[in-house]
Amino acid sequence: MSQPELRQDPITGIWVIVSEGRGDRPDKFARPNGHVTLPNHDPKCYFCPGNEHLTPPEVEAYRDSNNSSVWWTRTVPNKFPALSLEARADQNLLIKDGMFIRTGGYGNHEVIIEDPLHNRDIPERPSDLIREMWWMLRDRLTYNHSKGLENVVVFKNKGEEAGASAEHPHSQLAASFTHLQQLSKEIEGSQRYFSLDNFMDKKRQCVYCDMVHQELEKGVRIIAENPYFIAFLPFASRVPFETWLVPRNHKSDYTLITSEEATSLADVTKKVFQKLRGVLKDFDYNMVLHSTPLNTGVQESYHYHIEIIPRTTKIAGFELGAGTYINTISPERAALHLNSYR
Amino acid sequence: MSQPELRQDPITGIWVIVSEGRGDRPDKFARPNGHVTLPNHDPKCYFCPGNEHLTPPEVEAYRDSNNSSVWWTRTVPNKFPALSLEARADQNLLIKDGMFIRTGGYGNHEVIIEDPLHNRDIPERPSDLIREMWWMLRDRLTYNHSKGLENVVVFKNKGEEAGASAEHPHSQLAASFTHLQQLSKEIEGSQRYFSLDNFMDKKRQCVYCDMVHQELEKGVRIIAENPYFIAFLPFASRVPFETWLVPRNHKSDYTLITSEEATSLADVTKKVFQKLRGVLKDFDYNMVLHSTPLNTGVQESYHYHIEIIPRTTKIAGFELGAGTYINTISPERAALHLNSYR
Repeated sequence: MSQPELRQDPITGIWVIVSEGRGDRPDKFARPNGHVTLPNHDPKCYFCPGNEHLTPPEVEAYRDSNNSSVWWTRTVPNKFPALSLEARADQNLLIKDGMFIRTGGYGNHEVIIEDPLHNRDIPERPSDLIREMWWMLRDRLTYNHSKGLENVVVFKNKGEEAGASAEHPHSQLAASFTHLQQLSKEIEGSQRYFSLDNFMDKKRQCVYCDMVHQELEKGVRIIAENPYFIAFLPFASRVPFETWLVPRNHKSDYTLITSEEATSLADVTKKVFQKLRGVLKDFDYNMVLHSTPLNTGVQESYHYHIEIIPRTTKIAGFELGAGTYINTISPERAALHLNSYR
Repeated sequence: MSQPELRQDPITGIWVIVSEGRGDRPDKFARPNGHVTLPNHDPKCYFCPGNEHLTPPEVEAYRDSNNSSVWWTRTVPNKFPALSLEARADQNLLIKDGMFIRTGGYGNHEVIIEDPLHNRDIPERPSDLIREMWWMLRDRLTYNHSKGLENVVVFKNKGEEAGASAEHPHSQLAASFTHLQQLSKEIEGSQRYFSLDNFMDKKRQCVYCDMVHQELEKGVRIIAENPYFIAFLPFASRVPFETWLVPRNHKSDYTLITSEEATSLADVTKKVFQKLRGVLKDFDYNMVLHSTPLNTGVQESYHYHIEIIPRTTKIAGFELGAGTYINTISPERAALHLNSYR
């Protein structure tokens, strides 16, 4: 057990308190009841095969060419969209309401059904189907950018704690014209880092590239790697077992991922989820893809990546009030524990 | 039901999607089982009278002068402090770890036991005891500032959803040297607003003062008011039924609250919680006091206030990934519903 300390995220500037004083053992973060048992098909589920007519008309699917009723990854509009392409495009105008600013909810909100099986989330899914999920997300990001939607966030809510309203494995894509706070903060932060002094006697480069370099050198927070990706628990992890998947080589725009890289991403995703599953059992989580907005295009200072945020603890008043997180297990200790699983 | 729209918080710049498309009725946000029944005394509770020896030695208490074993508000150090005054003061130095920055967990972490009764949270508590809670928080903020701790956040986690680990009504105070992200963002945002163009043909003033002015003029989001305070649901409410308590007159530093103002604050707090209780039943919530950091002192552009964040919905991947919130009930509609209770 180390002394409590504060760590700063070099990109967003957010401070995290790493405080292991409560003596939490790593297995304390596991779901108390171990594994949740779901059927592989639920006749009442809108996302299960056979119920395709219950979703809004599909916008894209990967199907068996010999039997077109068989699909393995499918995208449909969100039935309850927070943002809509049907809103008039001029709703994009900013409207003043005294001192306040509002604008129409113009944008897009899609659901990506990741798997035909109701109970097959990432840890159980074969690597080649995880690849199909990543490739579909590439397609959808490309499509939404082509509609001129600058800011696209691709995210997954798994389980009730993570805010999921459906059990069936799915991701969501929300696209808007408006700047998304977190992404703006990251882009600004990485530009600031890029323009600063030297790091390790050489010119600074993209902050994520430097991070990949340093994590590989230290090794204490890495939990998986392969030719194109590394997975590590970030230095300033906000929550226990937070994990990032980062491409080794610089690339700001996820839509430029190659076929070979997507296969490699699926491989590293599978390895990471198997380790997380080993320690945390049936954990709820959010997963978010961070890629450059359309208007900023290919950038020297930004680097696409994926953040996995296990929801084993509550986001409380301190986090909401101070914007600072208290993490009760250091990423080094969490990584050590994860690495005892393979 | 109105069209979805995006609203920007004029202070933090955060965009909120107000999307009522799911047709949620206001009573959908209430706790499904109505009220939780707790005893007024729990012999196993560390914060109940009779168990004073189970907490670390008390640092301040309001007691009956005729019978010193009777207290009504009491402050003790947090038994599991995330930040500690016992850490060496030089731990405040920033330490470089390659590209990363860390510093010791120097600071303070206190627990304010708000009430001797185990089951008497704010909605049930007499107004004069709510006043004592606010006055104690003033004392503790003053004390921690006197120790040179620049950044102090006072927050409350009520209920499991809000991250509380104890049932007994309590608040917490966390004090550090390090800048707290959210407060920095608010201070920067209010300074930026202050330095901008005119608002309603007069020079802009503190953004909170302008907000008080506009909310009083429109009236549609106000749920309580009295001579010194107004309570309203902010224009860019991040979550359903988010409520702010704001002093009518400009004051940046909460420690300068007068005795008369504290009585008025207790009155408005009571009114607000009665209305929230009316609609949301036994809701879990966070409450956070936002006051100026010590080093910036009295400011023209910042204004202390209290934010109440009911935790009736989950913070999901979109919020964590995009830093943007989706709120499924507009503050105007929520206020209308609250105002049907008195």
